[in-house]
Amino acid sequence: MPDISMRGYQMPASPIRKLAPLSDAAKAEGVKVYHLNIGQPDLPSPVTALDAIRSIDRITLEYSPSDGYLFYRKNLVEYYKKFNINLSPNEIIVTAGGSEAVLYAFMACLNPGDEIIVPEPAYANYMAFAISAGAVIRTIPSDMESNFALPEIEEFEKLINERTKGILICNPNNPTGYVYTPQEMEKIRLLVKKYNLYLFSDEVYREFIYNDTPYISACHLEGIEENVVLIDSVSKRYSECGIRIGALITKNIKLHDTVMKFCQARLSPPLIGQIAANASLSEDSSYMQRNFKEYKSRRDFLIDRLNKIPGVYSPMPQGAFYTLARLPIDDADKFCAWCLSDFRYEGQTIFMAPATGFYVTPGLGTNEVRIAYVLNTEDLDKALTVLEKALEEYKNVCM
Amino acid sequence: MPDISMRGYQMPASPIRKLAPLSDAAKAEGVKVYHLNIGQPDLPSPVTALDAIRSIDRITLEYSPSDGYLFYRKNLVEYYKKFNINLSPNEIIVTAGGSEAVLYAFMACLNPGDEIIVPEPAYANYMAFAISAGAVIRTIPSDMESNFALPEIEEFEKLINERTKGILICNPNNPTGYVYTPQEMEKIRLLVKKYNLYLFSDEVYREFIYNDTPYISACHLEGIEENVVLIDSVSKRYSECGIRIGALITKNIKLHDTVMKFCQARLSPPLIGQIAANASLSEDSSYMQRNFKEYKSRRDFLIDRLNKIPGVYSPMPQGAFYTLARLPIDDADKFCAWCLSDFRYEGQTIFMAPATGFYVTPGLGTNEVRIAYVLNTEDLDKALTVLEKALEEYKNVCM
Repeated sequence: MPDISMRGYQMPASPIRKLAPLSDAAKAEGVKVYHLNIGQPDLPSPVTALDAIRSIDRITLEYSPSDGYLFYRKNLVEYYKKFNINLSPNEIIVTAGGSEAVLYAFMACLNPGDEIIVPEPAYANYMAFAISAGAVIRTIPSDMESNFALPEIEEFEKLINERTKGILICNPNNPTGYVYTPQEMEKIRLLVKKYNLYLFSDEVYREFIYNDTPYISACHLEGIEENVVLIDSVSKRYSECGIRIGALITKNIKLHDTVMKFCQARLSPPLIGQIAANASLSEDSSYMQRNFKEYKSRRDFLIDRLNKIPGVYSPMPQGAFYTLARLPIDDADKFCAWCLSDFRYEGQTIFMAPATGFYVTPGLGTNEVRIAYVLNTEDLDKALTVLEKALEEYKNVCM
Repeated sequence: MPDISMRGYQMPASPIRKLAPLSDAAKAEGVKVYHLNIGQPDLPSPVTALDAIRSIDRITLEYSPSDGYLFYRKNLVEYYKKFNINLSPNEIIVTAGGSEAVLYAFMACLNPGDEIIVPEPAYANYMAFAISAGAVIRTIPSDMESNFALPEIEEFEKLINERTKGILICNPNNPTGYVYTPQEMEKIRLLVKKYNLYLFSDEVYREFIYNDTPYISACHLEGIEENVVLIDSVSKRYSECGIRIGALITKNIKLHDTVMKFCQARLSPPLIGQIAANASLSEDSSYMQRNFKEYKSRRDFLIDRLNKIPGVYSPMPQGAFYTLARLPIDDADKFCAWCLSDFRYEGQTIFMAPATGFYVTPGLGTNEVRIAYVLNTEDLDKALTVLEKALEEYKNVCM
């Protein structure tokens, strides 16, 4: 048979999903598996969205426009206004999740061999999408001791060369929960302007910022309006991961029109998802307040509890619903797999994402895991008891 | 601002959708536009699908597995059995439409510079997906006089070189409606086997074959099981273009696992779409019979009527719901745009897809258009009257 492509070999297996077969096997044995691995919110989707789906009155489930329904894009304009992001509907392209937005952004902006700079740890699939586009992600380690703040700008400048086309940030950050300060965003602005780079900014967690750091969007940065590509998604903010509705936002007309060629090729974003996402925009504000409060209280519980486990350290994430924790282990991949395949505590185990998949630099993250707080506090408590027991046994058996 | 990518420049604008702004402008003037340009079925989606959507009982619209729900893949196995295609659920990957299946097939199989051979005219977006993967589509013209039958195998062999990685066919064919004969499929089988090529086979129109040519799937071909990549979609067969549910099917485990890395990166196919597509599989067979009969009668009407217009020729398509017709014009792009922007007949006009976008070889298709018969016979009749009048006026005014 013919061989697969080089990029097929290079594509990483998802650090979030690659251990799923072990989890499935454990469940098949009757083991209760606590999912801390994936940013799959357990909180309900807006009632307005579910109602809109249930009252769909179409006869034919037809294509929507390649850039998404105008009525939805118009309502998104109003949504962004609340965050002081001023757009017109034709600056918004509706995509199949934030994933498609990242892929098309890279496809439209980056040539094979072009480089983008990303602070690491970073959302693992950025690497996958870069490989899909033949582009190269160069990373600058951020530091757990400083809460994973923005690395020094000099570190970025050291990496910049004639192939550098952009900077990518995720703000609030997945997996670290860090929220860039106004001062850091200003530094990014100056860097992007100085070197005329693209600024890809993934801001899907903007609704979940728990401390006083103000939300500064890449779209707020003056003088680089045509450099910014905003990546968005309703997956996290409305617990609607399954409907696959995201957005690529740009004020750069040439880039917009180029992305549209990729969008026309795939015809249209999901129809029913757009109906659900649009209806979500009219959900009462108490919905988001309730979810916000819930995530915040889980965060407080989780970090406190984690830091009480001997040898474990987690900084306090400021946003999103993840933390990156350091564990007293030799190999996060091995430990996470071992929890699923070998370790049981009272018929339970835990599924965590090894942090190695969020780093590009070899050797980083080997004693770190990403924990998503998408379980209620009671289950989080049980899961952390399992983690504590697992760490004890692992130390004795495997290290 | 930084420049866009080379592939961004190379990406073609969709020949099906690029004239949409002219159509929108005509509609804004109050003109009735008959859409013959796009394979957007007007027939109803299955009632089972709409009911399933309306009775969705989820609280959280969560991710589905990256390869799609197992219950849906199991039901697909039964569906394919009816066509003598024997699969297991883990040979099926559910995708966001057939579009994503083509993109990931190319991404996983083809390196930049690799070549695939495609008979032309061909579905325009294959070219777009090849450019996305950095691959090169080489085409062999098929001939309207022979109904667009498979070109001679020698023509394929002339193009085969060390960069040739695959053959792509669409069967039944979009845009020509041609259905490959058992003899032609055997020739393809031998060619694929001889040169160890991938065979990408897009068979989304299998339910719509109107003559006695048996449906031979690429999956029926013996001895090349691991070379075949089947592309499928529910868009056309259930009038469900909007739900974005397709499939990539392969018995090649290495390829399957590679495609899965791309699928994991984009997390999951649409959730609600899968529920609708799954429910569609249980729709009574009378649904498909009714649609089949309707398309067949439209085809008979359309081709007869087209061939009565002076200077127009259309072969009789055997399947799908398109025909490629030759018109007495100088430039199909110009003519199709002119119909939308300048020509009105009793307040109506027509939107057709210029055939040039379906050819790679420059100069081919300049006097051809693709017509989709996705209007009822009455509207088709009106649209063809408009076409007839448009051709008369165009000859006098523009040629």
